[in-house]
Amino acid sequence: MKSNLDEMLISSIRNIPDYPKPGVMFRDITTLLGDARAFRRAIDELVHPYAGTKVEKIAGIEARGFILGGAIAHQLSAGFVPIRKKGKLPHDTVRIAYSLEYGLDEMEMHKDAVVPGEKVILVDDLIATGGTAEAAAKLLRQMGADIVAACFVIDLPDLGGRKKLEALDVPVRTLIAFEGH
Amino acid sequence: MKSNLDEMLISSIRNIPDYPKPGVMFRDITTLLGDARAFRRAIDELVHPYAGTKVEKIAGIEARGFILGGAIAHQLSAGFVPIRKKGKLPHDTVRIAYSLEYGLDEMEMHKDAVVPGEKVILVDDLIATGGTAEAAAKLLRQMGADIVAACFVIDLPDLGGRKKLEALDVPVRTLIAFEGH
Repeated sequence: MKSNLDEMLISSIRNIPDYPKPGVMFRDITTLLGDARAFRRAIDELVHPYAGTKVEKIAGIEARGFILGGAIAHQLSAGFVPIRKKGKLPHDTVRIAYSLEYGLDEMEMHKDAVVPGEKVILVDDLIATGGTAEAAAKLLRQMGADIVAACFVIDLPDLGGRKKLEALDVPVRTLIAFEGH
Repeated sequence: MKSNLDEMLISSIRNIPDYPKPGVMFRDITTLLGDARAFRRAIDELVHPYAGTKVEKIAGIEARGFILGGAIAHQLSAGFVPIRKKGKLPHDTVRIAYSLEYGLDEMEMHKDAVVPGEKVILVDDLIATGGTAEAAAKLLRQMGADIVAACFVIDLPDLGGRKKLEALDVPVRTLIAFEGH
């Protein structure tokens, strides 16, 4: 049942006040990942709408999106595409700049990681302002990907990330939400 | 059959000459990860000796070990423990220094990520000199983990990493090997 799932997952998240800076409540997902039952339920719950549908690639955002994305790719028998910080991929890449709280950063993926028309699910652990996920979605679209959905365990809806993705016509799936940031 | 598996996995690896420096043949696993069939086979082949045995945690080494480790944790219904570069984990950590080709680096894990006596499998994509994996194994032992095995898709046996782990009584499982480095 949804509400029991919510409770189980919410209680498996560690809340760290004033991290990384005063006034911010950090949602630490490592305690969920380390809890075999919670990890399994989170993955199974995230993927069940896509079971039996055609999903060819899971694109995971470095670094926590790799953990969830690897599990989801295996579960859906899809390939995995890493979206990495710049300078970490060994072959020809496409790159996109995106805004962080202070300044700009860049992320990239291999040019041949997605074939035009491939059905892709984008995965990260958490969506906050959505700047990273939005850049990743644009990068995937630039390579011709058909983005089926963007999946996150945690949503911080007050920060507006979901709306940013929905404005790009990317359906968003999240499991639990925390108010504030 | 083992030899067909070998061929399939070997052919899914991209070989990049002179990367990251002249004379080195880089084994790029992203093409294996992106190939749904190869990724699934690699994960299933890595874990099958442990199916039905008690494995409580999968410890994945940042960053490519997260992709494989996440899939393995889900497949074995185990929890996942991230071993990260220093400064990336939000709660109390234990830290260990290790040698890179030039100088030292440090990795860390959360203090409460493993309970003494827990059965843990260490995961990364590739074992070369084994410096990173050896440090990760020592960190896990320091926290009381019972290391069941260390699993890697690729072995570069000429660089001696496997022997380094076996000298610590850590059983090593790899799927394919490349001579040289």
